Amino acid sequence: MLCFLVRNGRLEAREKPLPRLRPGWALVRVRLAGICNTDIELLRGYHNFRGTPGHEFVGEIARVGERASKKISRWLGRRVVGEINIACASLGQRAPCHSCRRGIPRHCLRRRVMGIVAHAGAFAEYLCLPLRNLHVVPAGVTDEQAVFTEPLAAACEILEQVRVREHREAAVLGDGKLAQLIARVLRAAGLRVVMFGKHGDKLALARRAGVSTVRADSARETGRGNRQTYSLVVEATGSPSGFLRAPQLTSPRGTLVLKSTFHGAARVETWPIVVRELTLVGSRCGPFPRALELLRSGRVDPRPLVARVFPLREAPAAIRYAQRPGVLKILLKP
Amino acid sequence: MLCFLVRNGRLEAREKPLPRLRPGWALVRVRLAGICNTDIELLRGYHNFRGTPGHEFVGEIARVGERASKKISRWLGRRVVGEINIACASLGQRAPCHSCRRGIPRHCLRRRVMGIVAHAGAFAEYLCLPLRNLHVVPAGVTDEQAVFTEPLAAACEILEQVRVREHREAAVLGDGKLAQLIARVLRAAGLRVVMFGKHGDKLALARRAGVSTVRADSARETGRGNRQTYSLVVEATGSPSGFLRAPQLTSPRGTLVLKSTFHGAARVETWPIVVRELTLVGSRCGPFPRALELLRSGRVDPRPLVARVFPLREAPAAIRYAQRPGVLKILLKP
Repeated sequence: MLCFLVRNGRLEAREKPLPRLRPGWALVRVRLAGICNTDIELLRGYHNFRGTPGHEFVGEIARVGERASKKISRWLGRRVVGEINIACASLGQRAPCHSCRRGIPRHCLRRRVMGIVAHAGAFAEYLCLPLRNLHVVPAGVTDEQAVFTEPLAAACEILEQVRVREHREAAVLGDGKLAQLIARVLRAAGLRVVMFGKHGDKLALARRAGVSTVRADSARETGRGNRQTYSLVVEATGSPSGFLRAPQLTSPRGTLVLKSTFHGAARVETWPIVVRELTLVGSRCGPFPRALELLRSGRVDPRPLVARVFPLREAPAAIRYAQRPGVLKILLKP
Repeated sequence: MLCFLVRNGRLEAREKPLPRLRPGWALVRVRLAGICNTDIELLRGYHNFRGTPGHEFVGEIARVGERASKKISRWLGRRVVGEINIACASLGQRAPCHSCRRGIPRHCLRRRVMGIVAHAGAFAEYLCLPLRNLHVVPAGVTDEQAVFTEPLAAACEILEQVRVREHREAAVLGDGKLAQLIARVLRAAGLRVVMFGKHGDKLALARRAGVSTVRADSARETGRGNRQTYSLVVEATGSPSGFLRAPQLTSPRGTLVLKSTFHGAARVETWPIVVRELTLVGSRCGPFPRALELLRSGRVDPRPLVARVFPLREAPAAIRYAQRPGVLKILLKP
């Protein structure tokens, strides 16, 4: 099968045999894969990953590993999306780790993460994942919607961590792919949402989804306007500057959700966090069923975020294109 | 009256007239004042404060401002401690600010903070505060105990912000004055507490209060030991290095309470906060009644932390002494 590997800051094409399946795992033929900023960070050295990146996909089950045979008929050919954290229970570990014992396998201390840590990802014709990681895509959800399930679930994680209904409005810092999804999820949860971004066209896209917007370099933001604060702020700029600015926008005793995972350190003055008694909440992967339900019901439609679909064999060009200013979601089609 | 001012990184003595009282305010004769690390930070330029520092005190009411006259007999001569945040309601503001309207006057957006922001503090023979900021000290609590009420309340703030009983144990980073109080408060709340510190004598003091200790530079801490993580961690080192180390000691989805308010910025890698979904809780001033009750019941006795009592007129020498390695609480007696 064709797949791509991270090599010297680029994607390199390879032909590889199909992966061998453990019992309880499935081989998935990729129908569409999405390029995430994390993939771009991987090219820059994040996690020292040298395998096949890609953790956003929709595909169909081509084969199921033994011992799961009685369930095969239920699974074969089904259209699925997949959770990316592979925990103890799927790795043949005899004793579960501390996190798995605590019931949070997404935080498994031994976990592999598809396309990010020690497990090949979706920039390939096929991938493999444990059946327990897979979720069937409802019939009415298109491939172009379903491929957003993973990042949309990450946006939904905020709803699991914060009682968002205690807030009337939220500020979202950033106007990129994840910020766009977060703004839509908070909007669907009933909040007024204000997006702070630098790109006119991306902000316009958010406005069409009912989100208020502020140009991050405008007078309203940099002048007196930045005295305006929010009890709920989500930092999703993907850059250190966003992390520096976010506490200033958060009201005393407010909640600041951190979503950016950029490579490197930021110089942070921590005393405002202490003096204003802010709560910072790190937020990563989220619940797939909730994301699929948002897609099924049409309450969030991510399709306007798709900038272009490239054939898989043009993955290197696609990931270069994804880094152009103003470009949102790029998809790969094997 | 004798008081001290921050000038060019030092304390300078002054003779000043007694402060004039607004209605509802009290003049307090200081019996004892405590030196806090924040006072040392003020000398280094924190908040650009040029007044009289000192926000830990016990005193007695010498005079009460008019309009509160009918209550005077209840207050005059009483031994009191005082909350340091002076909010809208006491500043003669017609309309309360957003925080005061929300019922969190400790976060008043116009607040003055005794000895820190725009209001003279306790390194003086007299200070003034609104009556509503004052709490009567129970008879059985000595001056040397009562002078710890303010920092002990700050330690108790953690109990208001975090459901500590959901954690069996907590790590406290730092072995200084505030860390010592925090460890005792968490211990009194029923947790096993492990203190990470650099000073053998300070750690020994904590052990005598039933706290386990780890030398921060020991093999257990820097070697494999630092894989040991805690679901509740309190950062109270007062230095950027503590802030850098704290996330490593916090288990996935764990809570990290930030107590240090040092001057300047720290270089922070924020992605571990996101990937491990940590919750960081900034924590500042706390509830005085809870602290007074801990002192009254004897469940926390801070007296072993007192290193030395200086006469007020020797305040400059006292604050220099307070900066010596290994020295804990220094008190000033007018």
